[in-house]
Amino acid sequence: MMRNPLIRPIAAMLTALLTVAFNASAAQITEADNDKFSRFKKQHQSWMKTSESTEVFDVLADDPNLVVLWAGYGFSKDYNKARGHHYTITDIRNTLRTGGPTGKEDGPMPMACWSCKSPDVPRYIDTNGEEDYFTGKWARNGDEINNQIGCGNCHDNNTRLRISVPFAQRAMDTIGWEWKTATKSQKQTMVCSQCHVEYYFEKDTKFVKFPWDMGTQADDIEKYYDSIGFKDWTHGLSKAPMLKAQHPGFETTTAGTHGRNNVSCTDCHMPRVTNEKGRKYTDHNVGNPFDQFEFTCARCHSQSKEDLEAVVANYKSMVTDAKLKAEKQLVHAHFEAKAAWDAGATEAEMNTSLTAIRHAQWRWDMAIASHGIHMHNPAEALRLLATSLERSADARASLARILAKHGNTDVVAIPDISTKAAAQAAIGLDMDKLEADKARFLQNVAPKWDEAYNNKYGGDDK
Amino acid sequence: MMRNPLIRPIAAMLTALLTVAFNASAAQITEADNDKFSRFKKQHQSWMKTSESTEVFDVLADDPNLVVLWAGYGFSKDYNKARGHHYTITDIRNTLRTGGPTGKEDGPMPMACWSCKSPDVPRYIDTNGEEDYFTGKWARNGDEINNQIGCGNCHDNNTRLRISVPFAQRAMDTIGWEWKTATKSQKQTMVCSQCHVEYYFEKDTKFVKFPWDMGTQADDIEKYYDSIGFKDWTHGLSKAPMLKAQHPGFETTTAGTHGRNNVSCTDCHMPRVTNEKGRKYTDHNVGNPFDQFEFTCARCHSQSKEDLEAVVANYKSMVTDAKLKAEKQLVHAHFEAKAAWDAGATEAEMNTSLTAIRHAQWRWDMAIASHGIHMHNPAEALRLLATSLERSADARASLARILAKHGNTDVVAIPDISTKAAAQAAIGLDMDKLEADKARFLQNVAPKWDEAYNNKYGGDDK
Repeated sequence: MMRNPLIRPIAAMLTALLTVAFNASAAQITEADNDKFSRFKKQHQSWMKTSESTEVFDVLADDPNLVVLWAGYGFSKDYNKARGHHYTITDIRNTLRTGGPTGKEDGPMPMACWSCKSPDVPRYIDTNGEEDYFTGKWARNGDEINNQIGCGNCHDNNTRLRISVPFAQRAMDTIGWEWKTATKSQKQTMVCSQCHVEYYFEKDTKFVKFPWDMGTQADDIEKYYDSIGFKDWTHGLSKAPMLKAQHPGFETTTAGTHGRNNVSCTDCHMPRVTNEKGRKYTDHNVGNPFDQFEFTCARCHSQSKEDLEAVVANYKSMVTDAKLKAEKQLVHAHFEAKAAWDAGATEAEMNTSLTAIRHAQWRWDMAIASHGIHMHNPAEALRLLATSLERSADARASLARILAKHGNTDVVAIPDISTKAAAQAAIGLDMDKLEADKARFLQNVAPKWDEAYNNKYGGDDK
Repeated sequence: MMRNPLIRPIAAMLTALLTVAFNASAAQITEADNDKFSRFKKQHQSWMKTSESTEVFDVLADDPNLVVLWAGYGFSKDYNKARGHHYTITDIRNTLRTGGPTGKEDGPMPMACWSCKSPDVPRYIDTNGEEDYFTGKWARNGDEINNQIGCGNCHDNNTRLRISVPFAQRAMDTIGWEWKTATKSQKQTMVCSQCHVEYYFEKDTKFVKFPWDMGTQADDIEKYYDSIGFKDWTHGLSKAPMLKAQHPGFETTTAGTHGRNNVSCTDCHMPRVTNEKGRKYTDHNVGNPFDQFEFTCARCHSQSKEDLEAVVANYKSMVTDAKLKAEKQLVHAHFEAKAAWDAGATEAEMNTSLTAIRHAQWRWDMAIASHGIHMHNPAEALRLLATSLERSADARASLARILAKHGNTDVVAIPDISTKAAAQAAIGLDMDKLEADKARFLQNVAPKWDEAYNNKYGGDDK
């Protein structure tokens, strides 16, 4: 539309005037309805295309070790690969991790679980404040959080890029990424990093916090968590005080080759593309850069798509191989710790081994929890897996001595964990009950949330 | 000299004619005297500059773990970082690894040890054949191998690039790198890879062989060595059947980013430079590419030297950290295995643990033995260190059970290995004797080798 170069300055002036008008008004309440942005046709339509990412990939079925590693924690119940942004609300409702709450006070998870799922989150915080938002169970405001991740999560009502939630802004301030002084490329990365980071829920308040007080790298975060005595859960077998990494894409990517060279998340995952009419726009169908090769990789790299795919495949195979080795050791360590407890080991005897398990699993998790680390920073993944294996070696050598002191010098047998179902049985999960609870929730509760939301705010995306 | 473009074709024709003349003659005997090539002034003078690499960096003093890892093997006696090509003969004579032979039949090492040290090696093979060359002890032909690594190792007498030794050509043929069909870039890499590779001495013949029959990567080579039941030595503490990686630069670099993009060894380490007179030549002072930044890195990379140095420093620190962790586990494993033997463990009990130690140390060694792997292929280094740590974890867990079965449930103490001297004492080396033997050799034997060589062939480089 603005292809005549003379029109650009006029449009820019108009935008500037409108911006001033907006800024001068009271603090904006986030527009959460993604369809209200449909006038930005190309962007909105490409965002809608995230709905085509339909495949549900069951990670636990693919790798049943994970069930053991997460025993006692929600992820052992159910963990699917993230689908497109269009499915954030659908999938958080569907996952067994959020359980089957029957009322506002029921269910395992806190409100904080919504934080990366919807533009209704900034809308709610704008309206009611952060403290109110983080109060209570996940089910408390199921009828307030309804739109899938979309426009308002990264844009203000005037479509300018922004950080939409105060807890993300606090984290960025902590590491000196100030919005005011950030480059365009940094801003593009910062909006993605509202969610694609490691975070935790603070102990008493259940506020979301990014654990970056001592730095953003795995070693820094481990030190931070240790220093505040934080654990996500106590392991169901080993009783180790565990940490769960979320999706530390920012942390690993900014330290990798692309990040160091100021390539932003959007340069690769939301490129500026040209449509069939020759019009340029930012593709909001966040996806695999290879699918848009000419607008992504090829802007900097002269190699062929096949060449670069082979490079990434090679790194992926290296990381996967080391990941499986780290998992094997951790599985053994958890069962060996359980055997040691069963044989009568004391807390004083076990503490060193349990700390080693905690650290080994943290390092494994930081190496593999984020999307595509084999592309973003394969060296860091492999380094972390090496350090995970080192801590597992410490754990297993000390556990073997503890077991021997309690009369057990045999190899600790691992039960059948060859399938997701077998592994879930081995750690004592009652899957039938979890699934029945979820089905009841989806049939009875979720539709009422939609109804209530629609009555209050009008249509939703689902 | 040939700056007038009209002169080039004439020079090329002359070269071609000369080449035909040479080819038509009987098989060339390598010209081993580097000074015979001094008419190639810029190249020869830059090769001479490798003599400025004078620093002797004592790797064992820097990291005494190595003394333990190599217990029972020559490298535990003495291991310095390689200096410039100008010092190959000097340093192989100086190292305690070659001992203090008193006559032609004396000393620990075979003739094969000369193979990467001098253009006298291809000269000798050209004259006497490979079987004669590989016969006997290292001291047998000390008076035949005298010139430092130089022209004849990579060039024929007509200065064309070539592979100068048949065992290297056989290895390249094995992996399909045929000289006839190789690109220029491959040829540049192949000449360096006559030496900068993993190799071993065949069991009976003591021929040098590159263990590439099953592939060139660490996993392939491990499988190959296992399949032929090869070991370099039996470990002095653990009694594990060990492998020693040499300097597998070709293997790791060709699989890394630069290698995959057809960057040759010489592109970075022997760049085409321009001297103060504006004349271009290939710099034969093989060294750190950052020292010639504008002719090396900057030919492809747009980042600053400082930026790229920081990248390499970061990778180096990652690799070093993982390397030290792998060493720590291996040191423990070797001492734990010794304690198990001492407690009465049987071969049948120990075999699995010893194989795990063999593999763990092989993977550690392949990750760090070659120069600059943190630059050439940091991901492979980290992957290998991860797999090393995994095999150490296996070894240590099984050793703890074996120890317990023989009544030992305590932590196996590690003696003082905090300095090179302490570590050498801990593994029972008599350094005074080794040093006295060496001094006697350098005083009595080596000068006679020089004298005999000079009488036969004229001056040498030392």
